[in-house]
This record gives sequence, C-alpha cells and structure tokens, in this order.
Amino acid sequence: MGPLTLDYSQFQTVYNTLSFALASMLATTIFLLAVQGRVLPRYRQAVVVSAIVTLIAAYHYWRIFESFSGSYVAVDAGDPATAMNAMSYVLVNGEGFNEGYRYVDWLLTVPLLLFEAIAVLALPQAVRKSLMLKLIPASVLMIVLGYPGEIAVDTAPKAIWGALSTIPFLYILYVLFVELTKATKTQPGQVAKDINGLRWLLLATWGVYPISYMFPMFGIDGADSFVWRQVGYSLADVLAKCLFGLLIYKIAREKSSVDSPEFKENEMKEAPSSV
Amino acid sequence: MGPLTLDYSQFQTVYNTLSFALASMLATTIFLLAVQGRVLPRYRQAVVVSAIVTLIAAYHYWRIFESFSGSYVAVDAGDPATAMNAMSYVLVNGEGFNEGYRYVDWLLTVPLLLFEAIAVLALPQAVRKSLMLKLIPASVLMIVLGYPGEIAVDTAPKAIWGALSTIPFLYILYVLFVELTKATKTQPGQVAKDINGLRWLLLATWGVYPISYMFPMFGIDGADSFVWRQVGYSLADVLAKCLFGLLIYKIAREKSSVDSPEFKENEMKEAPSSV
Repeated sequence: MGPLTLDYSQFQTVYNTLSFALASMLATTIFLLAVQGRVLPRYRQAVVVSAIVTLIAAYHYWRIFESFSGSYVAVDAGDPATAMNAMSYVLVNGEGFNEGYRYVDWLLTVPLLLFEAIAVLALPQAVRKSLMLKLIPASVLMIVLGYPGEIAVDTAPKAIWGALSTIPFLYILYVLFVELTKATKTQPGQVAKDINGLRWLLLATWGVYPISYMFPMFGIDGADSFVWRQVGYSLADVLAKCLFGLLIYKIAREKSSVDSPEFKENEMKEAPSSV
Repeated sequence: MGPLTLDYSQFQTVYNTLSFALASMLATTIFLLAVQGRVLPRYRQAVVVSAIVTLIAAYHYWRIFESFSGSYVAVDAGDPATAMNAMSYVLVNGEGFNEGYRYVDWLLTVPLLLFEAIAVLALPQAVRKSLMLKLIPASVLMIVLGYPGEIAVDTAPKAIWGALSTIPFLYILYVLFVELTKATKTQPGQVAKDINGLRWLLLATWGVYPISYMFPMFGIDGADSFVWRQVGYSLADVLAKCLFGLLIYKIAREKSSVDSPEFKENEMKEAPSSV
C-alpha cells in the first residue's frame, strides 16, 4: 500500500470515529464494572469478562487512534482562501498506520466474547465445557487464518487465507445456531428471546469484517476504501463489544430475577410510590 | 474558518475554562461511583449512568483541551515592555481545533441523560419504556441534524439544519413538560419539586447550545465569538451533566427514604449526638 492522501472530511471522519469507539469502550468498561454486583454471583463472571473485553478494545482503540493521528500530516492543498477545509492529509510515517492492532485485539476479545455468551447461560457444567471447547479454539483459528490474508497484497493469497478463515467461522455459526439452540431450550421466555438477539447481533456485526476484508479484492482501494474500512470495523466493534456486553448484563439481570424471588423484589420492583 | 488569533486573556480564558470543565466531570464521576451504594438498588442504575455521562464528558474535555492547546502557538506581539500579556496565540496546526468532539460527546451523553432522568423515577415498566422510546430517538435525531449546520460555513444551510434540529428538541420538551407530568403526578412532595428542578435545569442549560450555534448567523464571528462559544458550551455542559447528575442522586436518596423506613433510619437520620 503506497502513501494515502485523505481530504479534510475523510481525515475528520476516521479521526472522530476512532475517538467515538474509544469513548464507547471506556464507558462500557466502567459501567459493567460498576454494576457487576447487581446480578446474582453466578452471573458475575460473564459481566466482568464483558468489561474486560471492552477494556482490551479501549486499549487498542487508543493505540489505533495514536497510530492514525501520528501517521498523517496536514499538507496545504494550495488554496489559502478556504483555509482549513483545503487541507489534505498524507500518510508520512514509514511505519504507517498499524492494522495489526485490530488483529491482536480480536485474538484476545473474540474468544472472550464467546466465553461470556456461554457463561451467562449458567448451563450444566458438562454442556458449558463442551460448547466452549468447540467455540474458543475455532475463534482463535478464524483470526489467525485471517491475518496473512489481510496483510497480503495480491488477490490470490488474500482469497485463499480468507476462505480458510471462513471454515472456522461457519463452524462457530453452526454451534451457535444449532447446538446452542438444543442447550437453551430450557431458558425462560424473555431470556430465550435475548439469547436469540445476542446470536443475531453477533452474526450481523461479524458479517462486517469479511466484507471490509474483501474490499481490495473487488478493486475498491485507495482513500475511500480506507475510510469505509475504518468506519465499518469501528462501528462493528462498538456493536459487537459494547452492545453485546450490555445485552449480557441484561440477560444476567433477567436470569437473576428468575432464579431468586428475593433479587426480583429488591432489584426489579417499581417504587411503591409510583404505583 | 481561517486562522484565528487570540490575545493572551482570550487564550487563558478558554484554556482555564476547558480545564475547569474536565476537573468537574472527573470529580463528579468518581463521586457518583463512590456513593452509588447509598441508594436503594432500584435507583442505582440511574446513579451509575449519571457517572458514565460525566466519564464520557471527561474523556472528551481531555481531548478538547489537548486539541485546543496543541493547535495554538504563542507569537510575540511585539511589545517587550508588557511582556507576557503582549503575546498572541495563533491557530497554527492544520488539523486545527476539533469541534467534532463536542458532537460525538453529545451523541453519547444526551440520550443517557434522558435515560437517567426517567430511570430515577422508577415508574411502572410500560410507562418508562414508552417515555424512553420517545425521548431517546428524538435526542439522537436532534444531535445528528445539528452537526451539518455546525460545520456549514454559509448561513442558509446553518439555518435549515438548525430548524430541522429544533423539531426533535421541541418534541423532547413536550414529552418532558406534558407527558412526564402526567406520569409523575404520584411522586411524593419533595421528589416532585426536584423533578421540576431537573426539567428547568435541562431547559435552561440546553438553551445555551442553540444560542451559541447561532452566533455566526448573527454575524458575531472571529475570536470573541470563538471564546464565548467555548465558555458557553463548557459551562452549559458542567451544569447539564455534573449538576444534573448530582440532582439525580438527590432524587434517588429521597425516593429511597420514602420507599424504605429502614433506609431512612440508617441513612437519613441525624446523629444522636446532634439531637
């Protein structure tokens, strides 16, 4: 990839989207840590792991933000009359913008996301262990096989690594949509609905990654492709980590109130004065 | 916007106001997290969300502060006799001062502010859900429609986007001052007064934003306009987030003591020595 030139609004779009993602990750981390005590102890592991996922992502978004803003310098595009809006931003740093942070992030957070999704269900130990032994190695394999394709310049290796990475991805979907369904038949009504929401959120947001990955294969390249890939990855990350974590907390609250009438009385009841 | 030149006192005013806002946001965050256990569990969500609002704002004030101080350099204004006060500060960095942070901040915090105001009332679930489904999308729409007008240079698009953004703003006021009144008829005396205070605080502080927004439309531009806009936005933010959050905590305490005589006995009674 040669040096990329972004115009003022392209630069601002990426800059503000990265900052938005960082703020969201940070806020979700503190929120989940602050409320972890408000579910029954058996569901706290899932809530804390959700907070750790957004913490790891916050760290990487800070790195990505610094890497992005440090790699570009403003260059006067020549028309002093229109001043700032005439600026272009050229990639100057030889190290350039480091896409590797995203893969390191995913390598850590994707297995943890699957872990929290299973942990919150509080399934019998044998079922839980079996699901995790399938999902977690498959998710590691998916990320590891995707990376050589991401950094490859030619289409052929990109397509081959992409195809290899798709195999564990499809296997994960099979486990989540077929095997998990059997395991969750016994979950109460609203919880079953939320688990379904969780799966579809995961499918919808994870779908963004292969699409962004394939941009260069379709000949979509240059500044526009770069901007849309950054925006796509960032919004998908916010949904897949922050919204996902908040849904985990919601499920944990619902399951706590089904499990314990005392919890329900203290935590869920409307104020007597409002009746 | 061309390069702006600020004199010494203008630069210091913005610099210190931004730092004041950052300190206030940070302090309120830690305070609210520290005291969240001192309300009944059903009110803790509102207190924690208030802390998250000031946390997100603290992050953005830190960014705004860095962006401001990094965009200006001191230039000797030529009279060594008056020393430091003769300095001017000229916008030098091509990236310039990033106003986008404020909109990213509002996009996250304004829906959360409305969420905490409704959550603290502990209304019956159906009423609460219906109020939130009206207020939260309207607030997102209000911010999103305001942004194109903020960055527009000409008066016509500024006026059009401003007018569009006013529609959801008026709708929010309608919901808060008409619909919410019906829903809160049953709130006890002091709580009803505080909810009223909350609404007027919101109206008074939110009123600052459109006024600052319209400065350039009235031909008030240049350094003075910039300084007053920064000061106005910052003070409005401190009132709308810190004071608002502390009021939420006060309401949560009052409602806790109405709901539970035991809470009142432990938390609200004066020390025996003071009788």
